Amino acid sequence: MEELFSDEYFMRKALDEAFAALEKDEVPVGAIIVSKNKIIAKGHNLTETLTDVTAHAEMQAITSAANYLGGKYLKDCTLYVTLEPCVMCAGAVYWSQISKIVIGARDEKRGFQTAGVQLHPKTEMVFGVLENECSEVVKGFFNAKR
Amino acid sequence: MEELFSDEYFMRKALDEAFAALEKDEVPVGAIIVSKNKIIAKGHNLTETLTDVTAHAEMQAITSAANYLGGKYLKDCTLYVTLEPCVMCAGAVYWSQISKIVIGARDEKRGFQTAGVQLHPKTEMVFGVLENECSEVVKGFFNAKR
Repeated sequence: MEELFSDEYFMRKALDEAFAALEKDEVPVGAIIVSKNKIIAKGHNLTETLTDVTAHAEMQAITSAANYLGGKYLKDCTLYVTLEPCVMCAGAVYWSQISKIVIGARDEKRGFQTAGVQLHPKTEMVFGVLENECSEVVKGFFNAKR
Repeated sequence: MEELFSDEYFMRKALDEAFAALEKDEVPVGAIIVSKNKIIAKGHNLTETLTDVTAHAEMQAITSAANYLGGKYLKDCTLYVTLEPCVMCAGAVYWSQISKIVIGARDEKRGFQTAGVQLHPKTEMVFGVLENECSEVVKGFFNAKR
């Protein structure tokens, strides 16, 4: 059992979202946004369901959190995402000026770090929370496809 | 009068979208997507109106075009956009595998080229169509704000 409101605790909630994507046969990536220990937004990848390349977990969570807060900047918020964001999502994270991002597994191929994209100076970054579990769900999905 | 269905012709339609953003006091950027000489999607920046950092002109046009086509890949489509896309939008353009992108003005500060982001190998790129007009509308907006 994880400690209440720890990074592991919230990453497990993001993993729940990844499993929701998996149930829809989507690439299993999940994201949540937390403000003051409260989950204010959830999202999971829906690119196939919505036939929309922009429907990544993080994009939906960012839009939803801003809607909840009534403002477009996600101050005092933390994004938990099971897989390293792609270039598009890192760009959205930049614009949101979110305070913190916590990432599960690395994405060596499509991740924003490989592309050399920078986050906003206001954004603190933590890598590797529940890394193995976040990685296994994606690997399992692609292995089953082959 | 521009030649019918030339890049200039369609960029002027994208400029119409930029002016629609300007009327709402949004940073004036407009985009359209064309397939077989038909405009299948339009978008203009709505980040303030929707309080959503992801509501850039290109993002809306890409989502809308995929919805129209019933598929997420924008094959045989051209995106006309008045300002060089940011990192987020270039990431979305990448995922869409769109055939061609035509850009009006450069964005030296926030454009994807400055950030070193690459488009998809399938995507042809043209720069500088109606560059002055596309640039002036953005400059005019920011000058009026100062």
